[in-house]
Amino acid sequence: MGMIVQKFGGTSVATMEKIRRATSWVIEEKRRGNDVVVTVSAMGKTTDELIHLASEFNVRENRREMDLLLSTGEQITVALFTMALQEQGFDAIGLTGWQAGIVTEPVHGRARIVSVQIDRIQKELARDKIVIVAGFQGISTDGEITTLGRGGSDTTAVALAAMLQANRCDIFTDVTGVFTSDPRYIQKARQLSSISYDEMLELAHLGANVLHPRAVEFAKNYQIPLVVRSSMENKQGTIVEEVVSMEKDLIVRGVAFEKDITRIKVFGVPNEIHSLSAIFSILAEHHINVDIIIQSATESNPNSVSFSIKTEDLEATIQLLESKKKDIPFDHLEWESGLAKVSIVGSEMISNPGVAAKMFSCLSAEGIFIKMVSTSEIKISVVLDEKHMIRASDLLHNAFQLEKVSELAY
Amino acid sequence: MGMIVQKFGGTSVATMEKIRRATSWVIEEKRRGNDVVVTVSAMGKTTDELIHLASEFNVRENRREMDLLLSTGEQITVALFTMALQEQGFDAIGLTGWQAGIVTEPVHGRARIVSVQIDRIQKELARDKIVIVAGFQGISTDGEITTLGRGGSDTTAVALAAMLQANRCDIFTDVTGVFTSDPRYIQKARQLSSISYDEMLELAHLGANVLHPRAVEFAKNYQIPLVVRSSMENKQGTIVEEVVSMEKDLIVRGVAFEKDITRIKVFGVPNEIHSLSAIFSILAEHHINVDIIIQSATESNPNSVSFSIKTEDLEATIQLLESKKKDIPFDHLEWESGLAKVSIVGSEMISNPGVAAKMFSCLSAEGIFIKMVSTSEIKISVVLDEKHMIRASDLLHNAFQLEKVSELAY
Repeated sequence: MGMIVQKFGGTSVATMEKIRRATSWVIEEKRRGNDVVVTVSAMGKTTDELIHLASEFNVRENRREMDLLLSTGEQITVALFTMALQEQGFDAIGLTGWQAGIVTEPVHGRARIVSVQIDRIQKELARDKIVIVAGFQGISTDGEITTLGRGGSDTTAVALAAMLQANRCDIFTDVTGVFTSDPRYIQKARQLSSISYDEMLELAHLGANVLHPRAVEFAKNYQIPLVVRSSMENKQGTIVEEVVSMEKDLIVRGVAFEKDITRIKVFGVPNEIHSLSAIFSILAEHHINVDIIIQSATESNPNSVSFSIKTEDLEATIQLLESKKKDIPFDHLEWESGLAKVSIVGSEMISNPGVAAKMFSCLSAEGIFIKMVSTSEIKISVVLDEKHMIRASDLLHNAFQLEKVSELAY
Repeated sequence: MGMIVQKFGGTSVATMEKIRRATSWVIEEKRRGNDVVVTVSAMGKTTDELIHLASEFNVRENRREMDLLLSTGEQITVALFTMALQEQGFDAIGLTGWQAGIVTEPVHGRARIVSVQIDRIQKELARDKIVIVAGFQGISTDGEITTLGRGGSDTTAVALAAMLQANRCDIFTDVTGVFTSDPRYIQKARQLSSISYDEMLELAHLGANVLHPRAVEFAKNYQIPLVVRSSMENKQGTIVEEVVSMEKDLIVRGVAFEKDITRIKVFGVPNEIHSLSAIFSILAEHHINVDIIIQSATESNPNSVSFSIKTEDLEATIQLLESKKKDIPFDHLEWESGLAKVSIVGSEMISNPGVAAKMFSCLSAEGIFIKMVSTSEIKISVVLDEKHMIRASDLLHNAFQLEKVSELAY
C-alpha cells in the first residue's frame, strides 16, 4: 500500500462532469489500496472572474483582501469534489489550506510554503478517508489567509507529497504531458515520455506553463516522482524524475519561449558591489523577479547594469528604483518593452560548447537580433523582439532536430 | 465616541453599486467618530447558486462540505466590501468567521454561536480600522467551518454587538422596517416606528422574515437596540428595543403568517412523561424545530400527541421516529401537510382575554377552520389550511384595526 498525491488543475474541474471524471482517477488509486490525497484548483475561469470582480475597486496595493477573495475559488472546488466522491460511496473529507496545515510566509499574492502541519491529514488518512485539500492557498505564520500565486496548486500538491512521503505525485492538467515545445505554436513539437527535474525546472521557469517551477524544485529536493498527464484522456503522461544516466547524444531537449519581457537599463551606477546589491535587494524585497542581469562596464557606458523583468512588474520596478535613487545611487533609467525570451534546455549542454554557437548562428542567419544572453548548466536563453519569438523557436526546434530526439535512457 | 455594528443582507450587497451604497452608511458612522464593525451576507443569489451546484451530487446527510461550500459566499462579500472602503481612503480589514473569533457548536448547517473571541477585532479597532466580518459562519469548537443557517448573518451581527458592547446594531435589509404584516400580501400593512424585543421575537419566529429570531433573542438578552432599515432608501427604520411603558389600548401589534407547515400525530403513546420527552428529545438532538405541541387525551384517542413542524423536516422526522418506535414506544404516525400558521402578536395581549375570542370568531364567521391553537403571553397562533392563510391574515389585520394603531409611547 502506497501514498499517492494527485492534483487537478482548473480545466480538469471546470464542470460537474469534469469533476466526476477527475474523481475516477482518485478512485482508481484508492481501489488499488493506496492512500490518496488530492489537491484541487479553482474551477475553470473562477479565479479570473473573482479578479474581475475586484478590479471594480481601485485598490492596487492591498493584496490581503485579494487573497481572502481568491481563496474561495479552491474552497468551492474542494467541497464539490468531496461531495462527488461521497456520492460514489467513498469516505472523503475536504480541507481548506489552513485546515490542511499549509503554513506560508506572511506575504500576500505570492507566498511561499514554509511548512505543512500534516497531523490533520494523517488523522483523516488513518480513518481511511480520501483527503481533498484546497490548492494555491495557506495560512501565514500570523494567521492570515494567503495565496501562493498562479500555479501555486502544483506547489501545494508537491509539498503535500513531500511531507507525506508519497510514492508519486500526479499532476492532472489540460495537456497530455511535457512537450519539446508548445505544440500550439510549434508544429513539430512532440511529447516526451520522461524528463529530469533540472530540465523540467528550466522549462517551467522559462514559461512552458505545464508545471510551476517551485513545484519542480520541491519535487527535486524531496525526490518525489511527478507525472504530468491529462485528466480527460487515458494516455500515458510524462514522468519527471531524477535521471542518472542518459545517452551522450542527447543535448537539447526542449525549446521554451515567453513574451511580455522588459529590459531595464540603469545608468550611472557606481562600480561598487554595494550599489548592485542595493538594486536587486530592493526588487527582491518587493517580490519582483529579475531574470537576466548583465553588467556591462564598457568605455562608452562605464557604469550601467541591465536586467530583464516581466512587463507586468515594470511600473512597480520604476517606482521603487526612482524612490531609492539617492540611496543606491544611480543617474537615470531606460527601458524597452515588447521583448521575449527564447531558450533551449538540455542536461548535457554544458559538455557541448558548440550548442550556443549553433543557436546564435541559426538566429543571426535569419536576421534575428539578440539583445541579451544568459546561460546555465542546462540552458541558453536569448532575449529578442517579441515579433520574432515564434519564428525563432521554430527555427531552433528544427535546427536541433527535436522532432527526432530519442527518449532518455535509464 | 460610540461603537456601532451594522449588518448588510444579501440584497444590500447584491451588486458592486449596492456595495458602494452600503459603504456610505458605514462611512457616515465612522465620520461621526464611532468605531464601526460590519457584518455582511453573501451577495444576492450567491448562496442559492452554491446550493444549486451542490444539488448536482446526491449527498444529503453530509452537511460538513456544504458549510465549506456556502461559507465562501460571505467571504467573497467581505473581501469586496473591504476593498470598496479602502478605495475611498478608509482603513478597513476583512475577516472570515474563524478569523473574527465566531465560535459555534460543532453542528453543520445550523450551528449556534457559543462565544465570540473578540481580541482580533479589538486589536484592529484599536488601529482605527473599520472591521468587516463574514456573517452566517463560524468555526466549531473542533476546528471545522460551520454555518448558522439562513438568516444567520443577523445573529452574527447581534452577537458581535453584544460582545463589543455596541451602542446600536443596524440591520440593513431590503425593507424599510418592521410592518404590522407583510405588505406584499396585506394591503393595509404599515410600518411601525418601534417594537419591543418580545413582540419582534414572536414576529420573527412566526415567519415575518425581517430578523432572525436568534438575533432578536441575543439582542434582548444583552439589551442591544436594533434598527431595521433599508440600505437603498434614506428612510427612518423601526427600532427594536426594551419597551418600559406603553399605552393601554395597544393590544395587537402585528399579524404574521407562515406556510409549509405539517402537523404530525403520534398514536398509541403511553401516557407517561418519559414517552413524551423521548419524542421531543430525539427531534431536538437532530435540530428539528417543533412548534406547537398538543397532547389530547380524549376518550376516542386516549394516547395521542400532535405537533407541528416545517414541512421540509417531515421526511427526517418520520425516519427518526420510526427508527425509535420500540424505544419511545408508539403505535403509528399520521401527518397532514399543506398547512399554514397565522398569528397575532402584541405585548398587552395577556391582560386582554377577549382577544383570543375575537380572533376565533372572526375566522369562523368566514368559514375558516382552525386545526391547532397555541398561545403565549404575547401571541396567539392558529394552524389552518394553507389556502386560507392570506385571507385569514387580511381579516385579522382589519378586525384589529392595525392600519390605525398609534405608535408605542416611551
